[in-house]
Amino acid sequence: MHFVAALDDVPEMRGILGLFEGVVTGAADGYARMAGKPAATLLHLGPGLGNGLANLHNARRARVPMINIVGDHALAHKPLDAPLESDIDAIASAVSAWVTRSTSPDDVATDAAHAVVAATEDGGRVATLILPADVCWSESPGPVQPLPALSQTPPTEAAQCAVADALRSGRKCMILLGGRTLLEPGLRAARRIADATGAGMMCETFPTRLERGAGVVPIDRLAYLGEFAQMQLDGSEVIVLVDAKAPVTFFAYPGKESVLTPEGCEVIDLCAGGVDPVSALTDLAERIGCGTDVAVAPAARPERPTGPLTAESVAASIGALLPEHTILVDESNTSGIFVAGATAGAPRHDMLTLTGGAIGIGLPLALGAAVAAPDRKVLCLESDGSAMYTIQALWTMVREDLDITIVLYNNSSYAVLNMELNRVGASNVGDKARAMLDLSGPDLDFVALAKGMGVTASRATTAEEFTDQLEAALAHRGVRLVEAMVPVIGM
Amino acid sequence: MHFVAALDDVPEMRGILGLFEGVVTGAADGYARMAGKPAATLLHLGPGLGNGLANLHNARRARVPMINIVGDHALAHKPLDAPLESDIDAIASAVSAWVTRSTSPDDVATDAAHAVVAATEDGGRVATLILPADVCWSESPGPVQPLPALSQTPPTEAAQCAVADALRSGRKCMILLGGRTLLEPGLRAARRIADATGAGMMCETFPTRLERGAGVVPIDRLAYLGEFAQMQLDGSEVIVLVDAKAPVTFFAYPGKESVLTPEGCEVIDLCAGGVDPVSALTDLAERIGCGTDVAVAPAARPERPTGPLTAESVAASIGALLPEHTILVDESNTSGIFVAGATAGAPRHDMLTLTGGAIGIGLPLALGAAVAAPDRKVLCLESDGSAMYTIQALWTMVREDLDITIVLYNNSSYAVLNMELNRVGASNVGDKARAMLDLSGPDLDFVALAKGMGVTASRATTAEEFTDQLEAALAHRGVRLVEAMVPVIGM
Repeated sequence: MHFVAALDDVPEMRGILGLFEGVVTGAADGYARMAGKPAATLLHLGPGLGNGLANLHNARRARVPMINIVGDHALAHKPLDAPLESDIDAIASAVSAWVTRSTSPDDVATDAAHAVVAATEDGGRVATLILPADVCWSESPGPVQPLPALSQTPPTEAAQCAVADALRSGRKCMILLGGRTLLEPGLRAARRIADATGAGMMCETFPTRLERGAGVVPIDRLAYLGEFAQMQLDGSEVIVLVDAKAPVTFFAYPGKESVLTPEGCEVIDLCAGGVDPVSALTDLAERIGCGTDVAVAPAARPERPTGPLTAESVAASIGALLPEHTILVDESNTSGIFVAGATAGAPRHDMLTLTGGAIGIGLPLALGAAVAAPDRKVLCLESDGSAMYTIQALWTMVREDLDITIVLYNNSSYAVLNMELNRVGASNVGDKARAMLDLSGPDLDFVALAKGMGVTASRATTAEEFTDQLEAALAHRGVRLVEAMVPVIGM
Repeated sequence: MHFVAALDDVPEMRGILGLFEGVVTGAADGYARMAGKPAATLLHLGPGLGNGLANLHNARRARVPMINIVGDHALAHKPLDAPLESDIDAIASAVSAWVTRSTSPDDVATDAAHAVVAATEDGGRVATLILPADVCWSESPGPVQPLPALSQTPPTEAAQCAVADALRSGRKCMILLGGRTLLEPGLRAARRIADATGAGMMCETFPTRLERGAGVVPIDRLAYLGEFAQMQLDGSEVIVLVDAKAPVTFFAYPGKESVLTPEGCEVIDLCAGGVDPVSALTDLAERIGCGTDVAVAPAARPERPTGPLTAESVAASIGALLPEHTILVDESNTSGIFVAGATAGAPRHDMLTLTGGAIGIGLPLALGAAVAAPDRKVLCLESDGSAMYTIQALWTMVREDLDITIVLYNNSSYAVLNMELNRVGASNVGDKARAMLDLSGPDLDFVALAKGMGVTASRATTAEEFTDQLEAALAHRGVRLVEAMVPVIGM
């Protein structure tokens, strides 16, 4: 409460209200991905932190900087086990790299300064500062100077040599990029290295932020399904990790491998010890003496589609219309599988994805990205099942007058779960089980839901309708939602 | 996934799909409150458990039995730190009295049997069973016999004597009831004791389930605001706790007491050591030799209100129309303060409240209560701000064809937070701070939100409109929502 009351005293601080904490934490993630610096969340005791936990999990996986301020009971009130008393520390520890509780008003400013540094360590981490009520309402000695930012660890000679030797060894090498390497400087340096050494390059399955489109170095993503990822990595004798982890499958399946590194393949981490990955790539390119010309994606857009509205025709529409510098937020799951192909030659844009597998990130992520980049269009591709986790985000988008177009894929199904149900070997699936993955009856009406939160929306049932509606939405500055009535992929 | 796939093999098991885990855990709480036995939730790894955490916190405070089944990665997959890997144990420990992880298919059935017993201990607790994927998909030896239920601890001679002596000592005594004592048998026994000894009696501020209305022994609730609670307890020399805790304020405030027990007042727990509280009260009444006649609330209903729609006129409508045996779920917060008075003489009903202070419980609680008691009308009183936490519950209500009427108080404000902001001593509150507690701009349209999830809804702006709409909703079997446009209390 005192944090809220103090907002008017600090003009530099912008307060944004979410109607649910999962909106708040996902928005802070989206802000960090685009701004490159942390937002702070303000959460209320253990239950408020718990409500934000799924998107904090995703933020942890995205390795973005974020600071959670969690209000707690006054110090003397805490042992009384009042109704809202909860084990904030246990909950915070599950998603935070740094957790501190201020126990005196004298410490708050210093603890906050440490939280900022902790959040920016290793490229980005979740830091949680717990503030008891009386520590906030008592007189404090005032602000302190910010602590100096951590200096970036320079590339190490040993890692550079080991990777250079491996790349020139004649063995089949794959450079696996992740994290901060997926903007133009990292992609360009990696491409130079790959061209000079004959190595392959690809990126992790779910990038935090991937720059792509016409004029940008293209890169394939490691497939979600293990069988396809194994094919992509087949024959690799060396995998060079650059701000990425050794690849494993998303889930385990009966009788299938979880580890995707081929048998006998060596794995070398170019950035061990917290080395800045873009510097490491750039230095390595110089060390190897790579050329500077690299191939970039040519400009190419699909035709405006006609006919039935399907995942393919939605993707073609998006590819045909995507504005330059769009921030493409992707939580389209199965319905979006054609989007990457259809937008490969669209004007330059950034793609943000679901990094930690906890659905309900798309709308909040779009909200936060739009706050961070007010001059760019945000296009959010959102699945019906995932949308319903954090649908409250629509309200804040309108309230903050943001420029966001949402494509809401309505296929009345948790389609990805139906796929997973088949893949885990569950046989003879009956009606009761199928009903648990089905979103029809009653049908969700996203046009009405959007209206309920002040968002202008329309529904498309043909490719022509969808394309016209998407075009109108993108042309408008503000929040627009287009509900795309699509069949489940493969049906 | 294997749990879902097995649903069709167990006809006794009913699977109910929620669109968000907070709906699921709140519904399990509502089920337990009315059925008196646990429901199981099925949650997906740490993020799914996290999404359910706020209502698990409320369930822990309600002391209801509940079993969470949390799916986890396969044993060999877990150390690989796949994207969804999370510290389930840390999160579960914050809300569960019992946490176990099955590590072999041989153990699952036995662990599940223990979970059932653990959930029913001490009247009701949250038990969490973590099931790794491969433990589920491997062959198991099959079911085991249920374990015997724990026998209830009989009243102890020492506690009975201590309380009897105190009640007959001439000191001013207050019997504070909670938990399981608030149905007719407990209320009646406590009233007999109070009548025979001159003691006062009241119940905890937020009852799990309170039986009330015409023909039932009435009881005052301890006030939410500490100043009023202090007045209620003023002069008490002995407080007798019966399935309740020594009273403390909800939050701490600068310069105010958190402990509500008056200075020098003795506190005696009639049920220490897990004694069954209703048996303890009944035995105590016999021991003291109380009479058996007790005064009950007389039948009385307010007139149908006319004029402006306000918190008062909404309460009068509810009092005028409440059907017998209604389950009244109350998350109306500030807007509902007149409801208890207006329904005191309404036909007999049960009231379920927000036990742990984590908002977003009302709609899920109503859903679960309706599943448990299909022959009873559920009337859910829900605030706008709280509703938006778990609005997804509406969809499941329709899908399960439940009999629920929702009164949605729309005052465009987190009114309770505005009150708290004033109470913590925050002075000179500015526009930015006020905006954080304001729900207008855009206005939430709950009729549209309801339509989006298949719920028939209407909006009332006068007392006459509201009364007519509520009457029609209550007369209909199914899900109906009436949006009541009310001013903030006191404005």
